[in-house]
Amino acid sequence: MNAEKLKDLLTEVKSGQTSIDSAFEKIKDIPYHDLEYAKVDYHRELRNGFPEVVYSPGKSLEQVRGIVKDMIERTDGNIMATRADENVYKTIAELSDETEYYKEARVVVVKRQAFKVSEKSITVVSAGTSDIPVAEEAAVCAEVMGNCVDRIYDVGVAGIHRLLDNVERINRAGVIIVIAGMEGALASVVGGLTDKPVIAVPTSIGYGANFGGVSALLGMLTSCASGIGVVNIDNGFGAACLASKINR
Amino acid sequence: MNAEKLKDLLTEVKSGQTSIDSAFEKIKDIPYHDLEYAKVDYHRELRNGFPEVVYSPGKSLEQVRGIVKDMIERTDGNIMATRADENVYKTIAELSDETEYYKEARVVVVKRQAFKVSEKSITVVSAGTSDIPVAEEAAVCAEVMGNCVDRIYDVGVAGIHRLLDNVERINRAGVIIVIAGMEGALASVVGGLTDKPVIAVPTSIGYGANFGGVSALLGMLTSCASGIGVVNIDNGFGAACLASKINR
Amino acid sequence: MNAEKLKDLLTEVKSGQTSIDSAFEKIKDIPYHDLEYAKVDYHRELRNGFPEVVYSPGKSLEQVRGIVKDMIERTDGNIMATRADENVYKTIAELSDETEYYKEARVVVVKRQAFKVSEKSITVVSAGTSDIPVAEEAAVCAEVMGNCVDRIYDVGVAGIHRLLDNVERINRAGVIIVIAGMEGALASVVGGLTDKPVIAVPTSIGYGANFGGVSALLGMLTSCASGIGVVNIDNGFGAACLASKINR
Amino acid sequence: MNAEKLKDLLTEVKSGQTSIDSAFEKIKDIPYHDLEYAKVDYHRELRNGFPEVVYSPGKSLEQVRGIVKDMIERTDGNIMATRADENVYKTIAELSDETEYYKEARVVVVKRQAFKVSEKSITVVSAGTSDIPVAEEAAVCAEVMGNCVDRIYDVGVAGIHRLLDNVERINRAGVIIVIAGMEGALASVVGGLTDKPVIAVPTSIGYGANFGGVSALLGMLTSCASGIGVVNIDNGFGAACLASKINR
Amino acid sequence: MNAEKLKDLLTEVKSGQTSIDSAFEKIKDIPYHDLEYAKVDYHRELRNGFPEVVYSPGKSLEQVRGIVKDMIERTDGNIMATRADENVYKTIAELSDETEYYKEARVVVVKRQAFKVSEKSITVVSAGTSDIPVAEEAAVCAEVMGNCVDRIYDVGVAGIHRLLDNVERINRAGVIIVIAGMEGALASVVGGLTDKPVIAVPTSIGYGANFGGVSALLGMLTSCASGIGVVNIDNGFGAACLASKINR
Amino acid sequence: MNAEKLKDLLTEVKSGQTSIDSAFEKIKDIPYHDLEYAKVDYHRELRNGFPEVVYSPGKSLEQVRGIVKDMIERTDGNIMATRADENVYKTIAELSDETEYYKEARVVVVKRQAFKVSEKSITVVSAGTSDIPVAEEAAVCAEVMGNCVDRIYDVGVAGIHRLLDNVERINRAGVIIVIAGMEGALASVVGGLTDKPVIAVPTSIGYGANFGGVSALLGMLTSCASGIGVVNIDNGFGAACLASKINR
Amino acid sequence: MNAEKLKDLLTEVKSGQTSIDSAFEKIKDIPYHDLEYAKVDYHRELRNGFPEVVYSPGKSLEQVRGIVKDMIERTDGNIMATRADENVYKTIAELSDETEYYKEARVVVVKRQAFKVSEKSITVVSAGTSDIPVAEEAAVCAEVMGNCVDRIYDVGVAGIHRLLDNVERINRAGVIIVIAGMEGALASVVGGLTDKPVIAVPTSIGYGANFGGVSALLGMLTSCASGIGVVNIDNGFGAACLASKINR
Amino acid sequence: MNAEKLKDLLTEVKSGQTSIDSAFEKIKDIPYHDLEYAKVDYHRELRNGFPEVVYSPGKSLEQVRGIVKDMIERTDGNIMATRADENVYKTIAELSDETEYYKEARVVVVKRQAFKVSEKSITVVSAGTSDIPVAEEAAVCAEVMGNCVDRIYDVGVAGIHRLLDNVERINRAGVIIVIAGMEGALASVVGGLTDKPVIAVPTSIGYGANFGGVSALLGMLTSCASGIGVVNIDNGFGAACLASKINR
Repeated sequence: MNAEKLKDLLTEVKSGQTSIDSAFEKIKDIPYHDLEYAKVDYHRELRNGFPEVVYSPGKSLEQVRGIVKDMIERTDGNIMATRADENVYKTIAELSDETEYYKEARVVVVKRQAFKVSEKSITVVSAGTSDIPVAEEAAVCAEVMGNCVDRIYDVGVAGIHRLLDNVERINRAGVIIVIAGMEGALASVVGGLTDKPVIAVPTSIGYGANFGGVSALLGMLTSCASGIGVVNIDNGFGAACLASKINR
Repeated sequence: MNAEKLKDLLTEVKSGQTSIDSAFEKIKDIPYHDLEYAKVDYHRELRNGFPEVVYSPGKSLEQVRGIVKDMIERTDGNIMATRADENVYKTIAELSDETEYYKEARVVVVKRQAFKVSEKSITVVSAGTSDIPVAEEAAVCAEVMGNCVDRIYDVGVAGIHRLLDNVERINRAGVIIVIAGMEGALASVVGGLTDKPVIAVPTSIGYGANFGGVSALLGMLTSCASGIGVVNIDNGFGAACLASKINR
Repeated sequence: MNAEKLKDLLTEVKSGQTSIDSAFEKIKDIPYHDLEYAKVDYHRELRNGFPEVVYSPGKSLEQVRGIVKDMIERTDGNIMATRADENVYKTIAELSDETEYYKEARVVVVKRQAFKVSEKSITVVSAGTSDIPVAEEAAVCAEVMGNCVDRIYDVGVAGIHRLLDNVERINRAGVIIVIAGMEGALASVVGGLTDKPVIAVPTSIGYGANFGGVSALLGMLTSCASGIGVVNIDNGFGAACLASKINR
Repeated sequence: MNAEKLKDLLTEVKSGQTSIDSAFEKIKDIPYHDLEYAKVDYHRELRNGFPEVVYSPGKSLEQVRGIVKDMIERTDGNIMATRADENVYKTIAELSDETEYYKEARVVVVKRQAFKVSEKSITVVSAGTSDIPVAEEAAVCAEVMGNCVDRIYDVGVAGIHRLLDNVERINRAGVIIVIAGMEGALASVVGGLTDKPVIAVPTSIGYGANFGGVSALLGMLTSCASGIGVVNIDNGFGAACLASKINR
Repeated sequence: MNAEKLKDLLTEVKSGQTSIDSAFEKIKDIPYHDLEYAKVDYHRELRNGFPEVVYSPGKSLEQVRGIVKDMIERTDGNIMATRADENVYKTIAELSDETEYYKEARVVVVKRQAFKVSEKSITVVSAGTSDIPVAEEAAVCAEVMGNCVDRIYDVGVAGIHRLLDNVERINRAGVIIVIAGMEGALASVVGGLTDKPVIAVPTSIGYGANFGGVSALLGMLTSCASGIGVVNIDNGFGAACLASKINR
Repeated sequence: MNAEKLKDLLTEVKSGQTSIDSAFEKIKDIPYHDLEYAKVDYHRELRNGFPEVVYSPGKSLEQVRGIVKDMIERTDGNIMATRADENVYKTIAELSDETEYYKEARVVVVKRQAFKVSEKSITVVSAGTSDIPVAEEAAVCAEVMGNCVDRIYDVGVAGIHRLLDNVERINRAGVIIVIAGMEGALASVVGGLTDKPVIAVPTSIGYGANFGGVSALLGMLTSCASGIGVVNIDNGFGAACLASKINR
Repeated sequence: MNAEKLKDLLTEVKSGQTSIDSAFEKIKDIPYHDLEYAKVDYHRELRNGFPEVVYSPGKSLEQVRGIVKDMIERTDGNIMATRADENVYKTIAELSDETEYYKEARVVVVKRQAFKVSEKSITVVSAGTSDIPVAEEAAVCAEVMGNCVDRIYDVGVAGIHRLLDNVERINRAGVIIVIAGMEGALASVVGGLTDKPVIAVPTSIGYGANFGGVSALLGMLTSCASGIGVVNIDNGFGAACLASKINR
Repeated sequence: MNAEKLKDLLTEVKSGQTSIDSAFEKIKDIPYHDLEYAKVDYHRELRNGFPEVVYSPGKSLEQVRGIVKDMIERTDGNIMATRADENVYKTIAELSDETEYYKEARVVVVKRQAFKVSEKSITVVSAGTSDIPVAEEAAVCAEVMGNCVDRIYDVGVAGIHRLLDNVERINRAGVIIVIAGMEGALASVVGGLTDKPVIAVPTSIGYGANFGGVSALLGMLTSCASGIGVVNIDNGFGAACLASKINR
């Protein structure tokens, strides 16, 4: 249930179209539904602007099935599962014919409605070929959330002309998501070239003193360019959420 | 020189009001002015939307004086120095009567123009009394950058009713800046209560396993609430920059 | 041998029912039995209130068999092995028909006596579905130790109404165990809502800047709510021990 | 306002002794009082069992004065400030003649009521002479919170007979607080000798690989003795809070 | 070639029993033999008191075979390979019938001479059953180096009576090696009970805040007992080397 | 396209041998070729002196094939892929008969031109047998880049005569690459024995307090010998690049 | 009371020279004397071979005075305080005319008996001039404990001939203490040159990636030379204790 | 004594100009001179190409005086002390009139010979005004060592046009030293723009997640640009040494 639907319902109550008892039944269970192992949060869209999203790791396939089944029954919007492997995809595909798998992004969508397309785009800029899975997680999630997305990949700072060639395109965005591993310098350079909000996603790409993404994370947090918001290592989904909130 | 002024100048060139030579003289030095120890970046406002800001630590008073003097001569906007102690304030105050010192925020402003006031506000929410200096750095910087700011202080999660009483007010903002030390849990709770972009600033407030702000930093990066952008520890200025870019 | 049995024996000695030699034989070997690779500690119940528990990792199946066999022969209480996989379960099940496997909790119990049920309950509160294995370890261990346990799962702070709906139930407990990964903020919020002792268990659930549970651990140690005792990452068993000692 | 007083007031309302309006006036402001820089939390005692405590570092003397003054006016219980240096003491002493300074513990108390004395004692065990300030913070805070406290100091494990001589005395406690720096081994040894709940406080005493208390912190978290709850480094106050909740 | 043999040779040269040329041939290659991938160090026994030892990890089976074959041909003492799995054992066993595998210790010995037995013993004390592999590495290596070894296992400090029962036996040693994981407190307690040199080996046994042995390592380095020498995590071999040097 | 070829082309344009249109076609695509998942950087040789190198981890075999195929078509120099396993080798070998696999170094070369041989050599000095894979990565890459390479392996400081025997040979080099794991002391000793530039490569060889190469990395960064440049852990390729730039 | 005196006393009891009551009075108070803030451990010499030593930091001058006064009254051996500044020296000097201050070593000795001189020497080898305070702490403490000490200073590995010139002298020692900061490589090189036990003391000398002695600490723990025992950063006293136990 | 002088001396010996005894006297003391607290290394120039340099921190003024006095007496080249404060300068100035103080670089030079000037320059590029002290240490040391130095300061990547304007000038260097704090991205960008060797110096400039230079250090070690050698945090001197060795 989203804001629009709730207002419609309340209008119907006011006008007498819907009885109080009937409205009560529809609303009462909204806040969350208790599956014992999960309290599915159906008010999240009202509060946060997106429906609850299923983060797959650490959940058994039975739990994933139970949660998605409950969401299919109680809502009519799109349902999204992230960090989903083939098994999660198959489990969800058994529940609905509308299931699609964005393999590189590891995202499963039960696509019951066409994605909206925002006026202003979110540009996803990534440093290297190895960063693409995280970049795609960000890009696909942003699209599911209703945003127009522009992808500019493999423009790391060691060959800065590749980036400079794309400055104008970058600046057409409403928000920019920068994805980079290793030293994460791309965030600083992009941040210095634009007046748009920049969200930086450190990736765990690298080895040795990269320490699983720490070098990029620290680099982005201490960037000499001001006005960069950093999310967790490899957290393409989180970047998409923040970008989408900004883009509305 | 900001975007507006540059366009005016080019229009004057087009219409013949200004000669090419004269325009050339005005533009040629713009990108930066080389003071040997500093290359003051006068194109930053064009690129980033804010004029260059003087970060005081690590600069001698002579260097601060030189840089601000150059900015006073070459621009007519407001000039801001951050992390400024009394001596920095006095040094700048000698250069201009319009100098103001926001002591708690450690910000000096040479206020040559009234601050603009944005339509939508930026709400600065802080967890404890000790976090106020960072919160004020964020708030004052956001005001200098032309934003209406709403302050909600001392609403840490250990007394969650203080926060819940302010949910409606928080949700009126265009962007929310959350300032918290210790475990930084305030960012997660606020992030779960709003559909507005949240920028989280970990502070170095705490002791022991706080490790100078690391506990709050990690807590904010791994928040269970989605869509939170984190800036460096104690970086109120950076949060204001990002919030201001979003708020425009 | 527990306190009760020892007192009975000594009373029998005093009254002449048991000869000194016979009592000597029964007591002499008590402190521990030396299996070469393990000195099974049979006085632990006297000193600590619980019998020695078999922590499975790092022990060969032969060692587990030897230790449990020795305990079965020398005691008549319940025997517990933690972090037990299927193989540990099978090894122990061969020794006794009374063996039960709590799979999600990874706990094996040789249940030779009915569990006691404490007057006051221990409430186990967990943040997300992925935290359930640790929560179950805590819950099952607490039950084996004779406590009434109340489970409230998936009430993370990003949807704080799910938690607030359960405040009254939480406050009915004698002790509260809070299980949370990621930023561990649940401990702070629960700690602020109750006057009961809170034991916090950080879990290794999360990725990136979670660093295998460090973010939750630091968050709980630096919590702005006072009076929270923290145990090791994923240490549901340790939380149950402490809660049980408090609950008596 | 504590639980007892609130119940009395409500009884007076029921019996007509107090008018609803008058009761309303007394209750309405309770949850917290907004001093702009601080929202003093007057419901904490109802929720947590202790009144709000002033943590001094990071607060200006003006802020300390304002908060304590507000608490003196609105409550009639004891008021406590921790980590208080001489200046904090003097500031508070100007507000009330009943102010006492526990110098070694760095605690200031506005003692408006005699301390209660609990039936069961809290035993504070510390490893070395240098740990005494933290031990005293724990001991004094526990006394202010109404507990009988027993102190056993300088019984580190390098001279284990000093500890073993005190086992019986340790086991008389309702709860044990163990204070130790360096490797923090005292917590493990005490934990193995008692069936009472143990709260461990790592201190920052040590040098080199102690890393400001980290070695003791990790040692206590990974203790081979089960059922130890750990609080932040040097956090004597937090240990007292938890011990006091357990001791009730 | 060891000291004794070199002196014999030189004596023979002096007396004319061996020609200078013949002695030259025997000595010239001594310092090391270059296998391209390894320079086998045949002077180590002269300098360090032990022959070079093959540390197996990171070496291919071909390299192990080549090095051991070279040592068999050029020396007549015992040859030892540590951290050896089954494959390393088989590879070496093909080269000599005198090969023995100490499986729990992961040590392979080509036993061409009976082990010497020192007058004073080295006592290996370990905390838990899971620490035994490291303890056995220390014990077996010490035996190969010619020491009498006394093993006291599973005497962790959580059941301190198990340790106290063995104090006298511990004090009969010439040197004591303490093996412990988790918080490593055993080193401190043993160090406080003896006037013999103590060598502490932290093990990687534990989980969570153990961080692969860091908690035990830091605990041993910051021990409140003086005069403890610490070696690397899980380094039973290194402890045996140091103990053996001391024991001579 | 390298510097020589570009100058030739421009000379042809000047002399009329090549038409402007034809030259334009040849140059226009140079900076990089966009394969969507990769922007292959064909100007790198002009800017950096080496052609772009394919770092294999994190790239799918399809991506490796696409990038190498593009490079084969658009250039005529040697092509190199690092950290290449058997599958990467096979994938590239299908594209060209000139593919060679340096297995120990994990380097694949499409060898279309004989390697150049520099006048001065680069000496690669390594500490132990286990460090050889990293040493070979450095040596092979340096050879592909046109340098004469001298290998001195297994000369760790624990047997310092092995190193001292080679001092003269080390000093004949133009640049020295030192490869060492564990404590990395070899870099300090070599650095003190030579007046040639030293590049140090810490390896992840070791265990326990080695922390995946951190001990060697810190040791090299804090070396008491001056003038040592350190590259990332296990980064033999990076050392070869820097050495090669110096050697020219 | 040391072992000799205790045996004398017991012999006197046996022979009737001393009455049981009188012996009882002399022995009963021995284990420790309780000064409230300290339990001075008078059995330590019996157990550990050295009398209790006063570690000055974290103790008030009053506490130092009380402890040393008690030791002067109850013993007749030498008394030692480490990490002692001028004020500690003056405080102790007021108690006894026999007080001496070893300023560079920061050690105060109440010298009531001539130091014994061991047959075999302890050699203290240090890397740089800045390491001398720690080296002197080790050397002076070893002398107070009755050892002959040989000092070889400023022989860091960057000029290895300085060290090699002293190999013979180093090998004359019974035990070697190596003191080094920065990367701590001196321990590895010395360890490779001798068959004597080596105790390594990392110092906090250095900057940047030295991290207060961590680089030297890790380097020594992971040394490629076997048989090195490491003590805490800057812990010259601890090294002297261990060396002295070995040297007896 | 440098290589030239030694060769002259040996030639004189050969030709009979100098007697063997006289030459012996001149050479014998060369390797180092033992001042008890320091063994001044007079062979370093022969081995390393530079004379020994006095690193001031951790040395008393007496030690500095002794060492420099010895060097003045025994050599006739320039003498350099780094990290020198005013007092070190004054101490050295008393010994020689030729003493000069480079205050910003914290370098003292006893300038007894004119500096040589190399053919190719070393370019020192720094990111911000606050990095200048480290940049000057590198620049001045390089000049003392005989190099022509070109300084390009305040060209951080947040205003990348400032850097791009200087690419041609950067590429004229023989070696490039890049000095940067915060995220250290300047090293990656410069490394991608040049084919010259790049030496990167992380500085401790920054706050919060900078952790005293760690963020820049990790960023430089994991740079996406190949062929960058990194030295310790703030180590301008070390960078100058390495650059100078390369530049010869």
